[in-house]
Amino acid sequence: MSVGLPEIPDLLPVPGVSLGSTNAGISNRDRDDLALIKCAPSTATTVVFTQNRFCAAPVVLAKQHLNLCAPRVLVVNSGNANAGTGAQGVDAAARVCGFVASGLGVATESVLPFSTGVIGQALPVAKFEQGLPRCIKGMREDGWLAAARAIMTTDTVPKGVSRRFLLGQTEVTLTGIVKGSGMIRPNMATMLGFVATDAGVARPLLDALLQRVVGVTFNRITVDGDTSTNDACALLATGRADMPAIENEDDARFSVLAQNLEDTFSELAQALVRDGEGATKFVTVEVAGAATERDAESLAFAVAHSPLVKTALFASDPNWGRILAVVGRADVTRLDIGRVDILVNDVQIVAAGEPSPTYSEQAGQRAMSAAEIHIVITLGVGNEGVKVWTTDLSYDYVKINAEYRT
Amino acid sequence: MSVGLPEIPDLLPVPGVSLGSTNAGISNRDRDDLALIKCAPSTATTVVFTQNRFCAAPVVLAKQHLNLCAPRVLVVNSGNANAGTGAQGVDAAARVCGFVASGLGVATESVLPFSTGVIGQALPVAKFEQGLPRCIKGMREDGWLAAARAIMTTDTVPKGVSRRFLLGQTEVTLTGIVKGSGMIRPNMATMLGFVATDAGVARPLLDALLQRVVGVTFNRITVDGDTSTNDACALLATGRADMPAIENEDDARFSVLAQNLEDTFSELAQALVRDGEGATKFVTVEVAGAATERDAESLAFAVAHSPLVKTALFASDPNWGRILAVVGRADVTRLDIGRVDILVNDVQIVAAGEPSPTYSEQAGQRAMSAAEIHIVITLGVGNEGVKVWTTDLSYDYVKINAEYRT
Repeated sequence: MSVGLPEIPDLLPVPGVSLGSTNAGISNRDRDDLALIKCAPSTATTVVFTQNRFCAAPVVLAKQHLNLCAPRVLVVNSGNANAGTGAQGVDAAARVCGFVASGLGVATESVLPFSTGVIGQALPVAKFEQGLPRCIKGMREDGWLAAARAIMTTDTVPKGVSRRFLLGQTEVTLTGIVKGSGMIRPNMATMLGFVATDAGVARPLLDALLQRVVGVTFNRITVDGDTSTNDACALLATGRADMPAIENEDDARFSVLAQNLEDTFSELAQALVRDGEGATKFVTVEVAGAATERDAESLAFAVAHSPLVKTALFASDPNWGRILAVVGRADVTRLDIGRVDILVNDVQIVAAGEPSPTYSEQAGQRAMSAAEIHIVITLGVGNEGVKVWTTDLSYDYVKINAEYRT
Repeated sequence: MSVGLPEIPDLLPVPGVSLGSTNAGISNRDRDDLALIKCAPSTATTVVFTQNRFCAAPVVLAKQHLNLCAPRVLVVNSGNANAGTGAQGVDAAARVCGFVASGLGVATESVLPFSTGVIGQALPVAKFEQGLPRCIKGMREDGWLAAARAIMTTDTVPKGVSRRFLLGQTEVTLTGIVKGSGMIRPNMATMLGFVATDAGVARPLLDALLQRVVGVTFNRITVDGDTSTNDACALLATGRADMPAIENEDDARFSVLAQNLEDTFSELAQALVRDGEGATKFVTVEVAGAATERDAESLAFAVAHSPLVKTALFASDPNWGRILAVVGRADVTRLDIGRVDILVNDVQIVAAGEPSPTYSEQAGQRAMSAAEIHIVITLGVGNEGVKVWTTDLSYDYVKINAEYRT
């Protein structure tokens, strides 16, 4: 079940990018589980990886390769995370990169591996060897939707977005796909995202852009606070559009690109939450009026992670005491409880740290019954704010995670 | 339901302490909801309170009174937390202290108020006024069990421990009661603990002792990471035993007292977890071989709070990847994944960061099926360690917290 997730739109081809997918028999499911994303030699590529120090073999190897040369191919499999597999795991990922390299005539170091699936099982390298020729043969520019399906694990739907916009006089395309049910599956590991544009962007600027955009999108979603061992997000700029590359932030086109990237990543990130495990609500936690951005982020995540708040959301219970108690315990440097206001979908539930005089239980109940919940906590001690997106905590969350391997 | 909680033992009277309980009609339940604990004028009293900055009116007032004079009476009610009630709440608590003071002939400032129950409702002061004379009339030295019942909210059983031991040549008594289903109810707020001994202990030393003992007992239990607005724990030393007071840590009797206190607090703290919301497992998370105690504590709590680990515990699933993924993301300064060992009830599941060669799924399954789970994570980078106690995350946890106010 997902919350308010629109059907996946047409995913527009990005000049300079071709994709292939196949069922290589890596996962137990009867569907594609292997995808290739190949980009033109001109492409600038940047990737962010999980901060988890128990990171998987493909993450270790992809980081090494990224330091050696410009990537040409991303190889992605579902069904096996190749995590907790030690030195053999890195060796297996390297062999897969080697197969891809010889099949496509590129350097092994220009292949970046990504894996998602069960932890602690050896990567079935032979299945890659058998499946890759089929995958390569089927590569084409409009392979995005098939790739979005091939990288799914327990996602209930394929997830992607696509848009066209002008950079100066030139129309460019931006297409991205993503998988994950909320960055929350170290076992059926992982959030993976692959986004490409034909805009030309200098690599250092692209690095900075991805960091910045991920910081306010993928890094601001949470289902349960757990982060996986395989998380990765790649951004490719092929430079195939008829435009001079954007080299720095002073370029007038930069802010247009940055805004389109942020909107795209935001949609993709929210799609992960909407397809989150057991989600019955899509919840935006907004903190405003904080002294620092760190305070705002710390508080927003404390609310978004609180099992007591999340179960109240599941129950549509406007239990303001639970929210206020989280405000009281959060790691926030400047806090004056007497200035705290809390709104849920335009119903003020707390004013100046106490139940709002205008509040009625019925109005609170009505607000909390919506499938889309917007909690706004105003601290009144500064001008910083953030938004974080999350889900409620339902019986199904427990069911999915308790019964996952049974 | 509780996990492996022994029946409450005989609670031995502590010379110099008398207790009274009554049904004052403060809660909706037909049982005692008001308790008084009175101590001899010679008593040294120390209290630790919640760190939550949204703290309740009785906490605000008790802290003020504690600064003014030596406490003589603790007045405790269940059914109403007097939290989120603003200035009126503090005024109401002060009026209750006034009634107690005139009824018992002590100074108002020597009365400390404690409340637990629903947040955001006005304290029914008149019910205290009516109930207190009855409560006072029934005061006696063996009133501990009745008081343990009167302070319960959603606890399934009353919880307390008692012991006698020698300090030098003198036998002393130590008795304590506690309420809470795991420090986890900002709504039906609160963990409260009241422990008394007839040993003589100088107040500064008692302050230090309580801080130290709470640090390794009540502050090391967790059900869901939420802390309440009313948590408090009081330790009283009446000095009625025939012994010179212990003045400093060099006194040979000090370590005996400290160990008995730690054992008592540990039992009380674990009783809270065993009676935790929806608990089907009692889980000890032990971290050893850490570089610093802070690292050990940070990791132990990260594991104890992880919904993915907790649902795996509920499912009796030896999903070692989830534990290792928490190790990888925890806020730990020194970590070498390749040195991490993990045992569950003597079954080694991870050795040097990978599945143990001696591990079998059957052995893991068997270990995880026990009601008492001991997870030992050895980091192999130092000599510091801690133990933290917690529960699993079950359907009933969601049920209890989702349906709490319905």
